[in-house]
Amino acid sequence: MSFADEANSAVPTLPSTHSGIPTFLLEKAQKAKEGIFETRTKPANERQRLPVVPLGIERDEFTKALAELRGQLGAEHVEINDKPLKDGWYMEHPNTHDMMTILDEEELVASAVVYPGSTEEVQQVVLWANKYRIPIFPISMGRNLGYGGAAPRVRGSVTVDLGRRMNQILDLNPEDYTCLVEPGVSFYALYEAIQAKGYAHMWIDTPDIGGGSVLGNTIDRGVGYTPYGDHWACHAGLEVVLPTGDVIRTGMGALPGSNTWQTFPYGFGPYSDGIFSQSNYGIVTKMGMTLMPNPGGYESFMYTFPKEEDLGPLMEIIRPLRISNILENVAQVRHVIQALAALGQPRSKFFTGSGPIPAEVVHAAATTATAVGDYTWAYYGMAYGPAHIRAHKLALVDAEFKRIPGARRVDPATLPADEYFWARDRVAAGVPDIHELRWVNWTPNGAHVAFSPVSPIRAADATALFALGKRAHDRYGIDFFPAFCVGLREMHLIVEIVFDRDDGAARRAALDCLRDMIDEAAALGYGEYRTHLVLMDQVASTYSWNDGALMKFNERLKDALDPNGILAPGRCGIWPKRYRGRGWEMTRESGHVSEGSGVEPAGL
Amino acid sequence: MSFADEANSAVPTLPSTHSGIPTFLLEKAQKAKEGIFETRTKPANERQRLPVVPLGIERDEFTKALAELRGQLGAEHVEINDKPLKDGWYMEHPNTHDMMTILDEEELVASAVVYPGSTEEVQQVVLWANKYRIPIFPISMGRNLGYGGAAPRVRGSVTVDLGRRMNQILDLNPEDYTCLVEPGVSFYALYEAIQAKGYAHMWIDTPDIGGGSVLGNTIDRGVGYTPYGDHWACHAGLEVVLPTGDVIRTGMGALPGSNTWQTFPYGFGPYSDGIFSQSNYGIVTKMGMTLMPNPGGYESFMYTFPKEEDLGPLMEIIRPLRISNILENVAQVRHVIQALAALGQPRSKFFTGSGPIPAEVVHAAATTATAVGDYTWAYYGMAYGPAHIRAHKLALVDAEFKRIPGARRVDPATLPADEYFWARDRVAAGVPDIHELRWVNWTPNGAHVAFSPVSPIRAADATALFALGKRAHDRYGIDFFPAFCVGLREMHLIVEIVFDRDDGAARRAALDCLRDMIDEAAALGYGEYRTHLVLMDQVASTYSWNDGALMKFNERLKDALDPNGILAPGRCGIWPKRYRGRGWEMTRESGHVSEGSGVEPAGL
Repeated sequence: MSFADEANSAVPTLPSTHSGIPTFLLEKAQKAKEGIFETRTKPANERQRLPVVPLGIERDEFTKALAELRGQLGAEHVEINDKPLKDGWYMEHPNTHDMMTILDEEELVASAVVYPGSTEEVQQVVLWANKYRIPIFPISMGRNLGYGGAAPRVRGSVTVDLGRRMNQILDLNPEDYTCLVEPGVSFYALYEAIQAKGYAHMWIDTPDIGGGSVLGNTIDRGVGYTPYGDHWACHAGLEVVLPTGDVIRTGMGALPGSNTWQTFPYGFGPYSDGIFSQSNYGIVTKMGMTLMPNPGGYESFMYTFPKEEDLGPLMEIIRPLRISNILENVAQVRHVIQALAALGQPRSKFFTGSGPIPAEVVHAAATTATAVGDYTWAYYGMAYGPAHIRAHKLALVDAEFKRIPGARRVDPATLPADEYFWARDRVAAGVPDIHELRWVNWTPNGAHVAFSPVSPIRAADATALFALGKRAHDRYGIDFFPAFCVGLREMHLIVEIVFDRDDGAARRAALDCLRDMIDEAAALGYGEYRTHLVLMDQVASTYSWNDGALMKFNERLKDALDPNGILAPGRCGIWPKRYRGRGWEMTRESGHVSEGSGVEPAGL
Repeated sequence: MSFADEANSAVPTLPSTHSGIPTFLLEKAQKAKEGIFETRTKPANERQRLPVVPLGIERDEFTKALAELRGQLGAEHVEINDKPLKDGWYMEHPNTHDMMTILDEEELVASAVVYPGSTEEVQQVVLWANKYRIPIFPISMGRNLGYGGAAPRVRGSVTVDLGRRMNQILDLNPEDYTCLVEPGVSFYALYEAIQAKGYAHMWIDTPDIGGGSVLGNTIDRGVGYTPYGDHWACHAGLEVVLPTGDVIRTGMGALPGSNTWQTFPYGFGPYSDGIFSQSNYGIVTKMGMTLMPNPGGYESFMYTFPKEEDLGPLMEIIRPLRISNILENVAQVRHVIQALAALGQPRSKFFTGSGPIPAEVVHAAATTATAVGDYTWAYYGMAYGPAHIRAHKLALVDAEFKRIPGARRVDPATLPADEYFWARDRVAAGVPDIHELRWVNWTPNGAHVAFSPVSPIRAADATALFALGKRAHDRYGIDFFPAFCVGLREMHLIVEIVFDRDDGAARRAALDCLRDMIDEAAALGYGEYRTHLVLMDQVASTYSWNDGALMKFNERLKDALDPNGILAPGRCGIWPKRYRGRGWEMTRESGHVSEGSGVEPAGL
């Protein structure tokens, strides 16, 4: 049929042949490694040490407990974290700590890492944790860059690395456009599997950086850039190990022999999937995901706008276009400084003075160093469908955008192959990519951490958030990288602070800047949709309507589902009873806990 | 801008002028009333009686408790149900029982009805219920036709009629395309308010019958027929009174001063909205809803297919078209018998024999009595957008559908104004309607009850479910009305059994037929997405994977959130602890409980 034929002809293909997922990933990883994280100015921490054990657990008891777990899972699947913390980079992410730590690297470390190989083994780990009251912290693949990486919230937790052994695509259904994945399936792996099967009619959706877990990203409510960008809205069906060790399947998965687990998300009765996102109520071991039909063609476009004050009018233009789906994917409006950063070159190439890089330096550098040239705001978008359908939408967009004086449509034909535009093109076409990471080269030992408040799509809100971010960054002497992502009816301002992770003062400034912005944004009615591990208490505390009623409700659920408080204590600000009510880690300084410095949790 | 202009020109208008919502509703109601439920063969039950009190509550204590509540809410807002049960019809639905009862009308009745006027008064009612351990059953407007109407699950519960006094559209935002509604806002009222404001650029989505509550339908996970048909997916933000009396706001509503409660559904931390749908964990007092942008044009289409065995191939054609959004709204495939029923004439006009109406009689009558003429399956759909965009999709659909021999596109110009096609046209354009109800005239004292299993969109599944339904209907001598609704990746077979609600044998046959179908469908892996009040236990029991793990989880939540078990006990099969574990109402005969016949709940 004709639309399927168009779809087939429009499938994106990789620039080279790949012999299989592992090889492909290794090649891709090697290539990326050459451009990112080349140097670290300080030598890696070589300290040999005892593993950090969680507060309230005796070391002997801990050692005995781990020995028992080794007996259950096999010694090779339980690793004590008693070696120097390895530096890592994105595709070989360490699972013992946050590679991009905003605290001292030793702060939020795991005591041990365990590798269950099945849902049954996850149950065993959970029952074991209940027996010894040891906090466990599940990770899918441990990416989550900018939000805490693989680090546990409670120092000395046992990390449950699900992805290492549970990494299968359990089902890939070319008729229903669905799949069922385990925690270790990355966006790359899913993409590759679809290509390997020749299922050119199905697209995946990928976030900016494609090496993370599909399941992990989705339960953190991450987003991507095709029309299927709202990952949570696109999932269908979960298998969850509860903190008591029970296993449930949600939606139609609860009906034995059901053939609609991945095609109908809701099932019968309470739709409980949501409480397993951004929470610590269960360990998701399987997730269904819907896949996007190849739209039959696609076309990236980029517009630039000359002035800072174009931001407001642009947002007023974007809002109706986005809600009406004339703009079909997450609209990205990025500041020109990010075009510089995306070159992957150090800031020092453009500016060696102190304080934030001056605007005139940025504009001058953009003129000379980038293919697009100078501007203040860039819009990256994609139109989908056959050519005549795209033309309809692109004409509307063009007419609207050009109402802003000086608006310019960038001709993609003028852009070299390694221009950032093409990274956005790949991502918006569902092709995993890691070009985005280049901007961590902006500083030596580059790391990043995100501030991501939600706001209406309006001139006044865009302007207010831009001013708020700028003020805070200026206060701490930090370069300001604002990008506005328009979901559908709301936008997220995404500010990534890039900092030298080996520079304590830089880390401190970044953290203080973030804390200021969270409070200042909340005072204006803006809340974060997701945050870094060490900021979770603060962000959760801004959702305080009616005397903190929502958190009391969350805590009630936590106590009911996890009576021993073993699962990811503190994740998203939710503390189990035995950690609660002592002010522990609940202050502005919460991130800065060292062994012995925290208040002992109650009842341990 | 051009697309907005197109949108404005295409807005649907009502056939007559309306002077306001109440007048309009009265007019509409009067008009509909003339065609529906004209006669009831038996006189209404005139029995004057004591109110039914809930099992385990002493009558004196109950009387005292009600007096106390009267003091709090005002005497006029607490009604004891001690008068004869009033017959009713759709637009003036009684709130004391199920107007379309599948049991004796006196079975599932309320002891009293209370009318809170605010969230604070709902809290008062909840605290009162906890004090006296009286089961309360919240309704929005008490429609829910075919699924139990206004009846409570536990006989003698106090019905909390939210909609009578809490019926405001609290916000209607023409920039964000959102609204915030109370439980008493019907689809008609919302539609009217939008028209009254002149917001021609915003559409609502409406289910088949438009007189029900937007909020109530959505938390029951009802569906409609525009591209915004998945109501649950389109809601954004809830205010919920918990069974303990606490009030939470979900999503961004938990952030004081937030301006994104209706524009970003998720907020921060666990996304808890889902557990308040199809459950008894809270009383939803406010709900945000997103509204669809006027697509800039629309066009209904109808195809007919001659043979019963065309069903399978048609589903195989529909699946990729629907998933790819070439078919943009819920695809309806209906059997020709429904074209007869939709005429609003009694079955006796076509057939006076016993047993199900024979196929040849249906086909002969369709030929002579309907404007469309004879066929076996009809497809009702709508294309959205400007003309050239619609043409693209309609051409694809036409080519595909016509692969089935004898497929015929019906020319709407040949259809009279009262043809059912135009009711579907209105509904798919977001215009509330009640034409659909006409088919309850099929029998005297017509009522209906639904069987709605979920399946993949496949020939084999459509054929299996059709055969399953047909066998069961034949077994009980009931006319079979199958309609397949294709959501996106799944379809629901919707079977409405139309029965004489004053004929005990007919009710019994309908109920037995439903019970058989539920069990037989579950054995094949099909589960219901929603069900009638008296079938909830049975349907819930089919979601039994891993030794009923999901229900154990649901019960754990219920006990944590509603320790006294006062809120809608038994709704969706979830019983609070004090009612649980006694086999009470859990048998195949569960619906048939009379006062004194049930096992006393534990701990009352």
